This record gives sequence, structure tokens and C-alpha cells, in this order.
Amino acid sequence: MILKIREHGISDPDEIYYYKNVWRGHHHEAFGLHYSMFLPTLYSQCDSEQRKKWLPLAHSMKALGTYAQTELGHGTHIRGLETTATYDPSTQEFVINSPTVSSIKWWPGGLGKTSNHAIVLAQLYTQGKCHGLHAFIVPIRSMSTHKPLPGVVVGDIGPKFGFDEVDNGYLKFENVRIPRENMLMKYSKVEPDGTFHKPPSDKLTYGTMVFIRSMIVGESARALSKACTIAIRYSAVRHQSELRPGEPEPQILDYQTQQHKLFPLLATAYAFHFVGQYMKSTYHRITSDINQGDFSELPELHALSAGLKAFTTWVATAGIEVCRMACGGHGYSRCSSLPDIYVTFTPTCTYEGENTVMMLQTARYLVKSYRQASEGQQLTGIMSYLNEAQHRLHAQPVANRPTVIDISDLASLVEAYKLRAAKLVELATKSLQGELQKHKNQEDAWNNAAIDLVRASDAHCHYMVVKLFVSRLGEVGDVAVHSVLSTLAVLYALHGVSQNSGDFLQAGLLSVPQLAQISEKIKELLTQLRPNAVVLVDAFDYPDEMLNSVLGRYDGNVYENMFEWARKSPLNRTEVHQSYHKYLKPLQSKL
Amino acid sequence: MILKIREHGISDPDEIYYYKNVWRGHHHEAFGLHYSMFLPTLYSQCDSEQRKKWLPLAHSMKALGTYAQTELGHGTHIRGLETTATYDPSTQEFVINSPTVSSIKWWPGGLGKTSNHAIVLAQLYTQGKCHGLHAFIVPIRSMSTHKPLPGVVVGDIGPKFGFDEVDNGYLKFENVRIPRENMLMKYSKVEPDGTFHKPPSDKLTYGTMVFIRSMIVGESARALSKACTIAIRYSAVRHQSELRPGEPEPQILDYQTQQHKLFPLLATAYAFHFVGQYMKSTYHRITSDINQGDFSELPELHALSAGLKAFTTWVATAGIEVCRMACGGHGYSRCSSLPDIYVTFTPTCTYEGENTVMMLQTARYLVKSYRQASEGQQLTGIMSYLNEAQHRLHAQPVANRPTVIDISDLASLVEAYKLRAAKLVELATKSLQGELQKHKNQEDAWNNAAIDLVRASDAHCHYMVVKLFVSRLGEVGDVAVHSVLSTLAVLYALHGVSQNSGDFLQAGLLSVPQLAQISEKIKELLTQLRPNAVVLVDAFDYPDEMLNSVLGRYDGNVYENMFEWARKSPLNRTEVHQSYHKYLKPLQSKL
Repeated sequence: MILKIREHGISDPDEIYYYKNVWRGHHHEAFGLHYSMFLPTLYSQCDSEQRKKWLPLAHSMKALGTYAQTELGHGTHIRGLETTATYDPSTQEFVINSPTVSSIKWWPGGLGKTSNHAIVLAQLYTQGKCHGLHAFIVPIRSMSTHKPLPGVVVGDIGPKFGFDEVDNGYLKFENVRIPRENMLMKYSKVEPDGTFHKPPSDKLTYGTMVFIRSMIVGESARALSKACTIAIRYSAVRHQSELRPGEPEPQILDYQTQQHKLFPLLATAYAFHFVGQYMKSTYHRITSDINQGDFSELPELHALSAGLKAFTTWVATAGIEVCRMACGGHGYSRCSSLPDIYVTFTPTCTYEGENTVMMLQTARYLVKSYRQASEGQQLTGIMSYLNEAQHRLHAQPVANRPTVIDISDLASLVEAYKLRAAKLVELATKSLQGELQKHKNQEDAWNNAAIDLVRASDAHCHYMVVKLFVSRLGEVGDVAVHSVLSTLAVLYALHGVSQNSGDFLQAGLLSVPQLAQISEKIKELLTQLRPNAVVLVDAFDYPDEMLNSVLGRYDGNVYENMFEWARKSPLNRTEVHQSYHKYLKPLQSKL
Repeated sequence: MILKIREHGISDPDEIYYYKNVWRGHHHEAFGLHYSMFLPTLYSQCDSEQRKKWLPLAHSMKALGTYAQTELGHGTHIRGLETTATYDPSTQEFVINSPTVSSIKWWPGGLGKTSNHAIVLAQLYTQGKCHGLHAFIVPIRSMSTHKPLPGVVVGDIGPKFGFDEVDNGYLKFENVRIPRENMLMKYSKVEPDGTFHKPPSDKLTYGTMVFIRSMIVGESARALSKACTIAIRYSAVRHQSELRPGEPEPQILDYQTQQHKLFPLLATAYAFHFVGQYMKSTYHRITSDINQGDFSELPELHALSAGLKAFTTWVATAGIEVCRMACGGHGYSRCSSLPDIYVTFTPTCTYEGENTVMMLQTARYLVKSYRQASEGQQLTGIMSYLNEAQHRLHAQPVANRPTVIDISDLASLVEAYKLRAAKLVELATKSLQGELQKHKNQEDAWNNAAIDLVRASDAHCHYMVVKLFVSRLGEVGDVAVHSVLSTLAVLYALHGVSQNSGDFLQAGLLSVPQLAQISEKIKELLTQLRPNAVVLVDAFDYPDEMLNSVLGRYDGNVYENMFEWARKSPLNRTEVHQSYHKYLKPLQSKL
């Protein structure tokens, strides 16, 4: 694969990503972190001398690297990391140590057996003082024999939920010495005598994190759209039970309950595709602003990427399982690929920022914005809706205010989501305020309002998704395409209203009689989407090689191919399996 | 294990179940179906001659059996099965055939490599007529060489989502001949000349199905309580982030969001334990009535077991994943056992009756009961609440009716769940009625009301769970135990109200201002439960050997043991893995 990428001259990271996906299917690779973390970190944090030394080694894969941050006892709270790098001016070396069991590096991909180098995050000590976390290039295995170097205890962390292809590893240091030049010195520096120079700014690290989270939003769309493709195609192939006595068994996609499971997820997959595109382009726009010294939009992007990462990965994770279980028993077979899609995707809920922590980071920004708005400050960008909503929500008493939802009108639905979000941000801020008034300190108050804060973030993200989906429709010129995408958008919005109807009723945005109308409308939309459902997943355009699912085959020839696939099962290599001779026969002789 | 069971003289099925669980952990075994389906079917469907022949063979495991019903293209709708057994009076044999690809038997556990016999469900043809499905004992492998017999194509169906220990298999018949005596003849019969005698009743098969579904409700409680034990114990061990600057990192169980994830699931696990006990005792009570010829309660038991099987397995499946993700990264490691608990449990949503189909079966009974109640008939048993609710809900116009929930009072909460269920059963029946009035036939009308019907079943089951939990509290004499269980019951009930607040508002059972009170009350309950959370999971009393989870260890000594566990990873058997010599080194030489 690596040679082919070079042969074809593929260098655009997006193209490399898609090219690899075709080769790998849903699986990961032991070299994943070499490309996604080791190399990029060398590029962004080496000084010019270091680049000259390390980039050729990394490109030729003589130095095979990973990125070791998380420790056995430390994940989310990176300031709590315990690994130390203590500078010894007498030899001009850093001494790396793992002082406790909980400080053992844990989880880095490719660390267990593959890598011979790691970028290690450690607390830097020099001249008797701790200067916080810094990154060091640490050789861990011999480049000639691949054996662990002295003082390095390294191995695989054992079986996981999926990711069988990746040797996630542990790494323990016992007085491992590395030259001073192995500290990544583009920004921070330790001089030969041990004098420390701190970095001018920490904003660039911040940027990488935001980038990865933004990309995960697109990942949510891809994972969910693959699962929808498989489940919807197979629901057109599978015939089961009877609708009318004596008639042939209908396609299971004709059952209302099946449509109700799958079509809202199909709509969600489209919504997340548009949100993913938006995140990508917003990231590039803001990055180019940042490169010109304008950091003004970074906090908004940070809040948006954190919240949407959490929102979309939670929804997609649950949605993949709904798709799997909508395929009956065959969804449990790995020939469907649904189990693989699930186990490969679900870690996005935890890595690059645990989802609940992400929601709370977004909430911090929302509360700050709400307070600014209620002090009369005019907000810019996305958050300006809080100014407007403040005006709307408090214009007159709730009881007299007319309900705002016209359940067939997208603009009205966007407005309803906006006001729901504003209402929940308000409630969360007031809840926090209330806790503070109970003489609690800031931190305890925050913790005691956390449920409300997460709920506010969730509503904010939900609003963003509905808004972005609808605004994207404005760019679709083709009438027929516009029509079917609008149907999906209405379904997405109404399904969300019905799942959260208490919120909308509470905010006075919906009346009780409308609940029944929404149920009826959703049923109509399912019926409208039925004839287009299969083409709507075909439009995601996953070739069979990439989808790698017998159930989701484009040609629908499922059962013959399942039989072929099964015959290749490893257990079928011998007609009589060795377990018969080893266990069964001896057991039978004893009974 | 088998020898030990004999040695200790363990014969009670429950004791055998628990004894096996200790040996197996969360895993299944290749002999599972031999014990759970093959032997019981021989007991219940052999005539006296057949018992004499087959029981000793099965007990000595000379005949190793499985149960082959599901086919590649047929699951839920068993009348659609295609395998044929055609009687040939000239040789007094049945000829078994798989006429199509979709008729290949698929999924039976232990079929792929282990079993030498299968009980095969096939369409019986004799004297030119089809007499529907019957069960046949079919030898599939030689009892001396274990090789497949002529005409039998058998093998493993390939990797699945979990269940790695079980060789689920396929089975294809090409004119396989078995003696007439291999048809299970306790009820149906084919005479030597081919004359068919139909069974006197099909109610006994019905009984087995109800039994297994009832048992699955208890399985839901066990799976969820194991997951809660692991997640809650580990949340007391794990320290992360900071609540107050400068202070040590707090236990993650002190975070409100963590409590909000785990404590409602803890309450659910307790609720399901009580429901599981109720289902078991109800099953035994009704079975003894049936044995005395009283079938009157069977339809109610059937509806209850179908609905509660679906309700509890869906909730527990989702809940296990919440527990797993509440453990951060380490929840993904199989040392937590959470991935194994999930993949072992999730199939309960599909097997023994696909959940949506189960919900619709319950709905059929609910609609029938509602119609009887609205015709003035006095219902008995569980469904009598529909008489009462009909009276309450229609006593006065909705707008004037006082809300009924006292959010701190369990009796009032049970009442609210009852009225919500009655309301949704009413709405579903009216929806069905409306569809019928649109000149639709019965079947299309049913399909077009299916979403409402599932929702009604869900509300009915939810009511049953709340009611059974609360009524069980009445039996608890110890004041302190009663107090903490009541707190759990209120949390279970209020969490359900907040998750489904639209329903309660719609039925006029809740006012908008009460929503905020419920949020506050839930927070109070979480705080009250915090000091008891760990003992509440300890009370489930899973020994470490059975829980098999490093994260969930009783002694809390997690990190050292994780490191020990990791060192035993199969990849760590060699210091330098063979992949280095096979792939890495050659690759490096080419770059």
C-alpha cells in the first residue's frame, strides 16, 4: 500500500485517507499513528536541525513511531500525567522515568510490537523545577534487532473490543537516557546548561486538537452512512413474515417499524455529511485567519468542534447498532461488516476528548455567551442567536405566546430548535447561578449543574445540525434532489422534536395537539421516502470493495454469497476439527 | 465441568446454570444447545420407544445434538421454512432436502464442527400432502469418525460479533434418508404406510417459548447488574481531572454526570431483578395451572413474556454500552469484561423472537383487551387496569383534570405510569381504527399503526416494571434496606418520566412546571445514592471469578492487575514478534 501510494504520487492527505480506506476496509493498521501522529508532530514541533535528522528516518520507516500520551491512570486530565523527563547537565541528557504503576504509558497504537520510536509526553524537570508537559523523541527498540532498549519495558496491552489489527501498547521507563536534542524544540527549549525557555504560545497544539475533532464529525457521517447502506439494501432483499395472508412474504423495508428504525438514521447520515463538510471548510477558513494572526474565531470553533464531535459520535454509535439489529440474526455475522463498523467507530466517543467532557467544554462557552448576551452585549457568529432568542423568549409570558412550530415548514423548525437551545442554555445558566447562591464555590456549583449543562450543549448542537442541513438545501439547484433532501430534512427535524417533545412543550414551542400531528406527519414522510430509500444510500457511493459487506452488496445477491463466505471460515479448513480428537472423543470415552 | 457436575450430583437446572456460569464466565460453550435444546426436546417430544433409544445416547454424549430451525432466508416467520421431509413408504424412510439456497439451515450453535446429530424442523410431506412443520432427529456426522454423512453439507458460518467459542453452523441436505422412527412422534405420527396423524394440541410448544422468554428477562437483570458492578466499582477507583484547583483528582463517581449515567441503570438492574423473579414464579404458577388443564392465563403470560423480553433486553443492551463508555478508554479493553458482556448479551434482542415482533405480539393482546374494556367487559388479571383507566381518563375534560403525579410518592408514580400506558393503548387502538376506516384491510391497517402499537407495548411494559418494583418493596422488612430500595425505585420511575416527558404531558399527567421539579429531585436522589452505590452493586454478590473483570475487582486493586493481565497478551509471547521479520524488515529495505 505504501509503495503504491508513492508509485501513484498520492500526496494529498484526503486522497491518502480514501486510498487507504479502500485497501483496509473498516480496519485500522499498525502504522496508523506513524502517519497520523508521529510524522505530523515531527513536522510541527521539530526545529530545523531536528527536521534534518528525523524526517528522512521517519519517511523511510527506519524510525517507526507512535505517540505516547495517555497513561494507565491518566487520560482526560493531561496535566495529571506522571512520566518524568529530568535533565542531567553533566551528560546533557534527559532521564525518562515511570515513577508509579499508574504512570505507565497505555493505549498508543502500534506501540506494543511495531514501533521503534515514540514521542513521549512527560513532565519536564530541569534545575530542580517542573516546567510541565513537553514532548520527547524516545528510541524504544533497537533499529537493527528490534529488541527493546535497556530500561524500556514495552508490550501489547491485550485483546480489545475490535482493533485486532493494532498492537496498542504499554511503555514503562526505568532511567532511560536520551540526548538533549531529542526534546522537540521548535517552541520550548532546554539549553545545554539546563536553562529552560518556555514557548511563546500554546495555541498551535490547541489547533491540532480542534482539527482532529472536526474530522471526527465527518467520520460519524461516514460510519453511519455505511451502516445505513447495508441495513437499507438488505431490508430490500430480505423477505419475512406476512402482511396479507396467502401472499408472498414482503420486503422487510415495507414494514412501518423497519422504516421508522432506518429512515430517521438515513436522514441523520445526510445531516452529518453536511455538518462534516461545514466543519472541514470552517476549520480551513479559521486556520487561514489564524495564520494571519487573527485568533478571534478560535474559541467558537473550539466549542463547536468539541460539542459536535460528542453529539455526532454518540448518535452514530447508537445508530450503527440500530442498523445492525434491524438486519435480524445476520447483522451479528461479521459478513455483514456491521460488527466491524461498530467496534471501529465506537472509540470516537472516548478518544480525542471524552464525550461528556466535550459537552461540558461547549457548555462553558455557551454559558459565557449567554451571560454576555444578557448583559446586553451583541454577540457575533453562531452565538448571536442568543441575543435574538433572549428577545423572543421574554417578549411576553409563555402561556400567551403563540406556538411557533409549523411542522411542515423547515424555517419554522429551525426557529424552534434555536429557541429550544436558547431556553436550555438559559435554564443551565440559571441552574449554575442557583448553585452559586447556595454558597457553593465555582467548581462545586459547576458539578452540581452538570446535567443541565450537558443538556444545553446537546440542544445547541442539535440546533446547529438542523440549521446546517437546512441552509445546505439552499445550495441544491436540482428540483427533484431538492425535494427528496427536503423530505429528509423535515424527517430529521420532526423525529428530533418527537424524541425531545418535553423540551419543546416546556419552552412553549409546541402544543399538546401538535404531538399527534407530528406522529402522523412522520408516518407520511416514511411512506414518501420508501421508494427513494435504496437510491438514497446508493448515492453515498460506497463501492462493494470498501463496504465489504455481504448483506450490503450492490447487486443484492446476498444468500449465495453468504454461503460462499461461510465456507471460507477458518474452522472449515479441516472436515474434522482438531477439537474432536483433542477433547470430544476423550470426553465421550469417560461418560 | 460435565464430570464435576455429575460428581457433585448437581441436577437442579438452576444450579447447573449457576455452576456453569462460574466456570465459563461470560462465555458460551459449544455444547450449549445439546443441553438447552437437544435434550429437552427429546424429553418433551419423544414417544416411549424413542426415549429408550435416544436419551441414553444423548446423556452419554455419544449423540451430540443441536437444534436446527432457522434457515438462511427464514427466521421470524417459521411457517416460511423451506426444508422438506418427504415420506417414502417403500423404504419407510423420510427423505430430507434443502430445495433452495435460502433453505440452508443457518446459525444453530454447535452445529458447525461439534454435533453429530441435529433435531431438524422441516415441512412434512406424506401421501402427496404437506402437513406443516415437524421435528426429526437427523444424524449428520459419523459417530465413529465424526465425518459428515453422505448428502450432508455442514460447516461453520464464520466469525460473528462475539460467541467465538460457539461453532454456529450451516446444514444443507441432499436426499438424506432417515428411518421413519426418527420423526419425533409423541404428538404427531406418520404410520408405516404414510398415514399422518396430527397432534391433539400445539400448546406445549407455545409453553417452551414462553419459558425461554421469561428466563431472558432474568438474563437482562444479570447482564446489566454485572455491567453496573464493574462501572460503579471502577468509578470509585478512578480519579480524574479536578473539581477544585490544587486538590487531588476526585473519584469519577463524584461527578454528577457520571452518577446520572450509572445510577438510573443501577436502579434499572434492581427493577429487572424483581421483574425476572416475578416472571419465573408466574411462569411456574401458570404452568401448574396448565398441567391441571387451566389455560386461562396463558394468553396473558404470552403477551407479558414477549413484551418484557423485548423491553428489558433493549434497555439492558443500551445500558451495558453506557456502562462500558463510562469507564473511559479501559472500558474498551477486554480486561474490563464489558465488551464480552455486551456481545454475549446483545443477541437476546434478536433470538427467541425479534424484539419489534415481540412488541407487536404484546400490542395485539393490548388492543384486544382495550376493545373488550371499552365494550364494558370487566377484565381480569393485569389488564384490569384498562377498565379503571378508562374511567379515570374520561371522567372529565383533559384540560381541567388535575395532574396526578406527586413526584415523591411511589403510589402516585405507579398510577401515572398506569394512566400513561392506558392512554397510549387507547391512542394505538384509535390509530388502528382510523386506518381501518380508510378502507384498508386488517393487515395494512395493522402495519400503518405499527409505530403507535410498539409505543403502547413499551408503555405497558414500563408500567409493569414500575409496578412490580414498587409492590416488591412492600415485602422488604428491614427499614434501612427498604429506604435505599425506595430511593432506587423513585429514581427509576422519575428517570423514566423525564425521558418520556412528552407522553406524560400529553396525557395530562404532568404539568410543565413539574419538569423542573423532577430534574431537581433526580439530582437529590443521585446525591443520596452516592454513599450507597458501591454496596448496592456489591449486594449483587458476583464473585471475582464470575465477573472476570480487572476493572470490577472487589479489592479495587485495578492498575497493578491490568499490567499483569496485559503482560499475558498473546502478542507478548515473543519479545520480537514474527511480523517484524515477515513484513517490517522487508518493507524497510524497499523504502
